[in-house]
Amino acid sequence: MKARKIFAILSAAMMIGTMQTSVALAEENTATAPAAQEEGTAPKYIFLFIGDGMSYPQIQSANYYLSASQGENGKTDDILKSQNNLCFMDFEVAGSAQTFDSTSFCPDSASTATSIATGNKTYSGTINMDETMTVSYETIAEKLKEQLGYKIGVLTSVNLNHATPAAFYAHQASRNSYYEIGEEMIESGFDYFAGGGLLKETGNDGDQESLYTLAKEAGYTVVKTKEEAEALTNGAKAIVIDETLADSDSMSYAMDLEEGEWGLADYVEKGIEVLDNENGFFMMVEGGKIDWACHANDAAASITDTLALEEAVEKAVEFYNEHPEETLILVTGDHETGGMSIGFAGTNYDTFLTNLSNQKISYAKFDSDYVVKYKEEGTDFDTVMKDITELFGLLPPTEGQVDESAKLDSKDAHPEGEEQGSLVLTSYEYEKLKTAYEETMTRTGEEELNQEEYVLYGSYEPLTVTITHILNNKSGISFTSYSHTGLPVEVFAQGNGAELFGGYYDNTEIYHKMAELTGVK
Amino acid sequence: MKARKIFAILSAAMMIGTMQTSVALAEENTATAPAAQEEGTAPKYIFLFIGDGMSYPQIQSANYYLSASQGENGKTDDILKSQNNLCFMDFEVAGSAQTFDSTSFCPDSASTATSIATGNKTYSGTINMDETMTVSYETIAEKLKEQLGYKIGVLTSVNLNHATPAAFYAHQASRNSYYEIGEEMIESGFDYFAGGGLLKETGNDGDQESLYTLAKEAGYTVVKTKEEAEALTNGAKAIVIDETLADSDSMSYAMDLEEGEWGLADYVEKGIEVLDNENGFFMMVEGGKIDWACHANDAAASITDTLALEEAVEKAVEFYNEHPEETLILVTGDHETGGMSIGFAGTNYDTFLTNLSNQKISYAKFDSDYVVKYKEEGTDFDTVMKDITELFGLLPPTEGQVDESAKLDSKDAHPEGEEQGSLVLTSYEYEKLKTAYEETMTRTGEEELNQEEYVLYGSYEPLTVTITHILNNKSGISFTSYSHTGLPVEVFAQGNGAELFGGYYDNTEIYHKMAELTGVK
Repeated sequence: MKARKIFAILSAAMMIGTMQTSVALAEENTATAPAAQEEGTAPKYIFLFIGDGMSYPQIQSANYYLSASQGENGKTDDILKSQNNLCFMDFEVAGSAQTFDSTSFCPDSASTATSIATGNKTYSGTINMDETMTVSYETIAEKLKEQLGYKIGVLTSVNLNHATPAAFYAHQASRNSYYEIGEEMIESGFDYFAGGGLLKETGNDGDQESLYTLAKEAGYTVVKTKEEAEALTNGAKAIVIDETLADSDSMSYAMDLEEGEWGLADYVEKGIEVLDNENGFFMMVEGGKIDWACHANDAAASITDTLALEEAVEKAVEFYNEHPEETLILVTGDHETGGMSIGFAGTNYDTFLTNLSNQKISYAKFDSDYVVKYKEEGTDFDTVMKDITELFGLLPPTEGQVDESAKLDSKDAHPEGEEQGSLVLTSYEYEKLKTAYEETMTRTGEEELNQEEYVLYGSYEPLTVTITHILNNKSGISFTSYSHTGLPVEVFAQGNGAELFGGYYDNTEIYHKMAELTGVK
Repeated sequence: MKARKIFAILSAAMMIGTMQTSVALAEENTATAPAAQEEGTAPKYIFLFIGDGMSYPQIQSANYYLSASQGENGKTDDILKSQNNLCFMDFEVAGSAQTFDSTSFCPDSASTATSIATGNKTYSGTINMDETMTVSYETIAEKLKEQLGYKIGVLTSVNLNHATPAAFYAHQASRNSYYEIGEEMIESGFDYFAGGGLLKETGNDGDQESLYTLAKEAGYTVVKTKEEAEALTNGAKAIVIDETLADSDSMSYAMDLEEGEWGLADYVEKGIEVLDNENGFFMMVEGGKIDWACHANDAAASITDTLALEEAVEKAVEFYNEHPEETLILVTGDHETGGMSIGFAGTNYDTFLTNLSNQKISYAKFDSDYVVKYKEEGTDFDTVMKDITELFGLLPPTEGQVDESAKLDSKDAHPEGEEQGSLVLTSYEYEKLKTAYEETMTRTGEEELNQEEYVLYGSYEPLTVTITHILNNKSGISFTSYSHTGLPVEVFAQGNGAELFGGYYDNTEIYHKMAELTGVK
């Protein structure tokens, strides 16, 4: 253990070496040797929650949305506003991590999860391989299993062989090598997997042995129904695929969940039951669809999936409350997605967050359950508009409406008037929606997009993304991008070793701090 | 001192009471009584730096900009990217503060500075008065002066009677009561003021005694030249107005500074010299034009003014290095401005931050030194375009140019090709610029803006804001708003008592933590 400690200090010192700045105080940050490093005090139970695409805007918008929802008539007093509605906001430590990778300041989920899981930077799209694609990195989960005998759980709301979960067990030059990632998942010998279905289950050409068959042969119980999942007990070695798969075989968006359908929190609760053992466990839980929602600029789905991740964290907090000395909970993001802001040019200093509660369906479910049908049946705009009103709350301009809300006084430049916050479309918004409808109805998906079209719609259905843009903006929310951005992410920490996670540092340090605490090499 | 300590603990407990959530761990956060609370260990020298409008995007973009600028040919390796170029990023503590006020989740500078200075929420636009406008709050600066005999410095790059500096000495229902705020500034008896000129020096109607005359009568040395400022020595009681005033009588944007002109760091260095004394001092330093730059969506000016604030912090760090046990440095923001993101729909996962170095002039100086002239002289677009090329680096489309950069493949939806990052305008961008030029040349300022115009230009010169929008976007930076947004702000802390500032909390707690540390009531 002595040797481990020295290694940990050395590697921490090396990290600091690369982060050095001109001020003398940089040196002092390594001075405090954590108590948890001492023999026998490492956290026995480690929860690592990763909100994919979840940075400060996603967390704060979810928190403020809840505060606003509790106010009367949209009026929210200071007490309500000041509530920390998300349990991890009250964690004892809240650090920040920078997320750039070897490709860009706007990194991807493969490289950032590599940084968190192994302490190394690499190119976007790469999982646990170096930039030459010749060296593979062992992950914190592999090390904890091999060196300390921890049981390992990997959970995600997206596919179990998607980039973020993969970065805890796989080593591939490309995140798209789904079949090979699936093979590594099975070979990992990890104890509990739960989430969306495996992509490319039978390989790119559909001619390979089913990954699920291979998993059963390797001794895994593979279950695909809620009933079977419920029946799992302590010590099971299981792969749990969500019963009701949605877009791209991921779990449903939280806002699309049917009554009684399991969400991420249920899988975490079951995971604790399955994994609990004397040696300890490490559980990585990804809220993967916060990212997908923000790519599509769907603020309501981002908020509800962030709240679903928070519910999952609450399960860990319950466990922590029973084992406070032995448990460490980390809640972080891998990068920001969408350039989300609480605020929009058109609403100035106002927000109308409760407007988002009018959205009854995620962009993805609207695409699959409605837009596909519109295209097949050539549905007319007025009929589509009725669905939009029902599902998103947006109302067409009334006959002969004087569009006061669109007129602003350039001198004080505040969009004033009672129309602010109204869900009635202005003529400007109505025209945008109609144009987007026409784009959706005529596109084949093979077109080259011009610059304006790309900025307006990204690669999404013009109709759907325009609906969410308008509803977002009428709620005081806005996005700048359909990709990831360079904002740092939060690192909330509670419990054994939490004090190490304060400060503003590189995401690779999340690994180094976990390794330092547990003493793995 | 005993009573003070009990009060501090009680008030901390009351704060926690309002922040309570359902999880058990919330209670535990108050358990650690800070060592600094003990007799005689309070920080003797407190620096409070407030970047107005400076939240995570402003800091991280400044940091990444510096990293990118050090790379060769725009290529930046991991070592460069991982540098913390801003000294406060290496501070031992980096917490987060929520910024909402009694009006909105998108607060203003008067209310947020009230929260920081007094620990109370109030309405946007109000300075140190409660929501009924009947109760006035004493500020941390006033308390430190009265109860502990600290000398007080108030510095800002904007006007000395602007909202943020005012919140440390004034108590007014409206931030626009500039003359009354100026009177309170003089009555405060604080020791060192430095920054931009006083607004409404002789009152709203220009018929009142000059505030500068009143200041002299009250015993202040009022200086308005760099030479006089340099001559100030320890123990002076001075109001220093910057020699070269720019837009709205503020100090120049850092990017517009002439050779030898004093910046914020120089005023801090002088302030330390003037204020240093046996009883200790409190110095509030506002980087006020980060906010103004972000309102105008001028990313280059935001970055360079953030770096200017950082240089000012470096002066405090030098002082800290000489008095590490007795000094506390805090660096925070009051709110985010502009909904800035490192990333833009049109540049996808790429950034080209060094493109911003082509901008040689702030939006405000371009307005005053160029646009005014264009309007007077009816300058034609081709001539204007030449200035745009010289001052912002943007190039007109070349004759017969095949506009490849504007064509994107909708299937993978990445805007690919070598044109990415180019400063040559696409035909789409060129048309936007021309439309904006025409708007600028024909507007009287009295028009009612429609919704589209407001979202495009805010209340800014259409030409100028369109230039910065295009340059931002070509650099991989984007904004969503011309107002403040609801993002939390960072709270960096170093030195005596720094450990109190970790976590994710309300901005009112910044006051409570300072009060707790120093024991003021």
